[in-house]
Amino acid sequence: MSLNQVFDKAAEAFKVYKKVAASEKANLLRTIAAEIEQLGDELLQTAHQESNLPLARLTGERGRTVSQLQLFASLADEGTWTEATIDTALPDRQPAPRPDLRRMLVPLGPVVIFGASNFPFAFSTAGGDTASALAAGCPVIYKEHPGHPKTSQLVYKAIQNALQACGLPEAVFQHVSGGADIGQELVKHPEAKAVAFTGSYKGGKAIFDQACQRPQPIPVYAEMGSVNPIFILPEKAEAESKQLAGQAAQSVLLGVGQFCTNPGLIFYPENDTTESFLQELSEKLESAPTNKMLHEGICSNYYKGVNQLLAAGGVEKLLAPDEDVLVGNAALAKVSLEQWLQNEALQEEVFGPFTLVVTYHGLEDLERAAEKLQGQLTCTVWGTTSELIQAGSLADTLREKCGRLLFGGVPTGVEVSYAMTHGGPFPATTDSRSTSVGAYAIKRFARPVTFQSAPAELLPQELQDDNPLSIWRTIDGKLTKDNI
Amino acid sequence: MSLNQVFDKAAEAFKVYKKVAASEKANLLRTIAAEIEQLGDELLQTAHQESNLPLARLTGERGRTVSQLQLFASLADEGTWTEATIDTALPDRQPAPRPDLRRMLVPLGPVVIFGASNFPFAFSTAGGDTASALAAGCPVIYKEHPGHPKTSQLVYKAIQNALQACGLPEAVFQHVSGGADIGQELVKHPEAKAVAFTGSYKGGKAIFDQACQRPQPIPVYAEMGSVNPIFILPEKAEAESKQLAGQAAQSVLLGVGQFCTNPGLIFYPENDTTESFLQELSEKLESAPTNKMLHEGICSNYYKGVNQLLAAGGVEKLLAPDEDVLVGNAALAKVSLEQWLQNEALQEEVFGPFTLVVTYHGLEDLERAAEKLQGQLTCTVWGTTSELIQAGSLADTLREKCGRLLFGGVPTGVEVSYAMTHGGPFPATTDSRSTSVGAYAIKRFARPVTFQSAPAELLPQELQDDNPLSIWRTIDGKLTKDNI
Repeated sequence: MSLNQVFDKAAEAFKVYKKVAASEKANLLRTIAAEIEQLGDELLQTAHQESNLPLARLTGERGRTVSQLQLFASLADEGTWTEATIDTALPDRQPAPRPDLRRMLVPLGPVVIFGASNFPFAFSTAGGDTASALAAGCPVIYKEHPGHPKTSQLVYKAIQNALQACGLPEAVFQHVSGGADIGQELVKHPEAKAVAFTGSYKGGKAIFDQACQRPQPIPVYAEMGSVNPIFILPEKAEAESKQLAGQAAQSVLLGVGQFCTNPGLIFYPENDTTESFLQELSEKLESAPTNKMLHEGICSNYYKGVNQLLAAGGVEKLLAPDEDVLVGNAALAKVSLEQWLQNEALQEEVFGPFTLVVTYHGLEDLERAAEKLQGQLTCTVWGTTSELIQAGSLADTLREKCGRLLFGGVPTGVEVSYAMTHGGPFPATTDSRSTSVGAYAIKRFARPVTFQSAPAELLPQELQDDNPLSIWRTIDGKLTKDNI
Repeated sequence: MSLNQVFDKAAEAFKVYKKVAASEKANLLRTIAAEIEQLGDELLQTAHQESNLPLARLTGERGRTVSQLQLFASLADEGTWTEATIDTALPDRQPAPRPDLRRMLVPLGPVVIFGASNFPFAFSTAGGDTASALAAGCPVIYKEHPGHPKTSQLVYKAIQNALQACGLPEAVFQHVSGGADIGQELVKHPEAKAVAFTGSYKGGKAIFDQACQRPQPIPVYAEMGSVNPIFILPEKAEAESKQLAGQAAQSVLLGVGQFCTNPGLIFYPENDTTESFLQELSEKLESAPTNKMLHEGICSNYYKGVNQLLAAGGVEKLLAPDEDVLVGNAALAKVSLEQWLQNEALQEEVFGPFTLVVTYHGLEDLERAAEKLQGQLTCTVWGTTSELIQAGSLADTLREKCGRLLFGGVPTGVEVSYAMTHGGPFPATTDSRSTSVGAYAIKRFARPVTFQSAPAELLPQELQDDNPLSIWRTIDGKLTKDNI
């Protein structure tokens, strides 16, 4: 099937799918979740063989994928996400009457979603992007990630089964394989209305540029990772240097460092605990059980990235990268704040179990570092409660640089919930106004339309007088579940 | 002052302004509104001299500008627009605890706003873009429209007075004059975080391209106008052809056709009323009192555009453009649907009191036309209630093409309210997810940030346990005004 045919089918499916009741979209998502669970061990084994990820991790990721589908099912079902807003008519207003105005979010149309290598379930075929697009009412044209084609086919079949069981057009979800050239054609196709992507800066930026240069530009939600700095404040460092080193090591090592929120940068004070912190961190990184990375390309890029960074001026190697074809051994380096400030390349993400410790002297140093930071998915501050409060101005600066600001805890582990933001200023993403994880991810695939003086028969359920879905709506400026 | 200094000052002002209480932002907006009213006749006379717009129209526009400022003041004051969302901590959850997550919209930072020629108050210095940006917490760098520099200076002084009265940094609003080169430098400056623009396709698209090509791309909200088609259905046409012609003429003539929502395209059935509709429309357009356009450039472009369109294949001239240096005399033309479908140039906006009537045979024709339409600010259907309902599929298609879909009434007259969408798919705007009029315009200048495990002392008021602003928040997935 040509890509034109794929998009023609998607456009036809959209005509049906956009009119489907909210509850039917919810039902589809729940059925997909059930079909994925039905795949059982075969899915886990296949993903394990294709991605080298441990079965325990894949089991957890499958659970997360299922719960993502369920979260978006309940959002679709509940319906308040559509921001239904009604201004009632004021026929007698002077000098001019006000017409009846009813606004809601409607789906954008067919969207292109790219699978990610590092999450074969949760950011791939039936991952968060697909779940949120389907919940919004958009047909999905899914570009398989070449790292796990068999896994993708299994999930694709689960989705097809679900569409059939729900009596929906099969083209509500279409599956496309191919290389970067196919990806480019998908992004450039006139019928594509938005793109979602999780992966490298290079890949995401290329898609963004293509989308902007189309005759009709479209939104691109590319999540391109970041270094996710941790700022460790002096009192906390003094009091708990060893525990902090352990906590940091665990986050750096998680998933062989193959998370978008992996902490690749740690600011640590120059004091009498610096050496023991670095030593403990180094030991923890070195002594951890080793694991294979996703594939050889990612692994060789990892070592290449580490070596490039180690060659930079002023960077001191603390744990040499023990290179392997597939196993990602941890590495560690150190640099002074002054050197770090002078070299933007030291902000570049090294995808894998590596972190760079930047040593600083005082809070002013951290403020300078924060000002210099590029856009991040996360920034983390570790401090005693009193020093966190004293460092409020640092937090104010960091908030401008990221989508999620942590006070304690590690950035890895992205909760799938209502209040999550998995996004951030460029270059962490191409659209800081969005999140790719959590409930608000659904808003990426919708836009507002206002119906003026529409006959009751033509109004979507969300905007009908008697509020049949019982959703929260803004009526004449007040949030309410009331009828009109 | 160099542009670097302007942006440095804006960045400094942002540090203060982003932390200001919601009520202080509201107070600023209300004070600006009062200062503008205080300018009295001087403002009206100045704008009249610079724009040729009648005093009555300018009085109305001033009222709208003041009420826009007040609308955004009440939004800021009330605070629910920030989408505050809290997931409470679940420390005992298995397999992993959930941290405390608190999300809200925060301002983007300094934004660049371009003034529009056709609304010297409502889309200019203290217009809707400025009001929504200031309400969101963003300092504004305002690029004056060269068509009304004295008007702009007066309003600028009103804003400065208000900032001083409110004890806020003067750089919360800065005023820049200059040509397209200055505009380009503003868009390209690294400290600019978003751009808002209302004007021509050429101008808006150039800004969009510049913003996409920045090392760090930024959002552009360019509203570039459209032809705002009216689809007249057969029964309605048969029953009321004369009244419909009168209604259409009035909308085409409003403000000498210089509104973004001016109806430049009318679909009318081929039946025994066609001739009388066209004759009535032509007479109404011809006999209306004439008025000056905004300036000579716009006027000569108007006649140029009309003549270009009249020269296109199959276009029949019904009311010849009576050319003048400054007066915009109405013009009218007609084309068959088949010809219209073949020539995309017939969808291009002619800015001024001109409309093109496209004659069609059946509803299938209208569906084909709707499919072919570019993105529009508005689409309008006129029909009897029963034929509107029967034409539901036409409405379904049109909804994909516009930001506002009218059933009866005219597209001119954009209500400043909660449910308004003044936007639409490209090329009507560069971002169909936004509106530049109405309450939701505030969201253009904000992005989400999630605070994880933040000390109470560092939380913005919107996210504090006891909900001091008494706003609606989503707590653990439920909308509530409750405390935690």
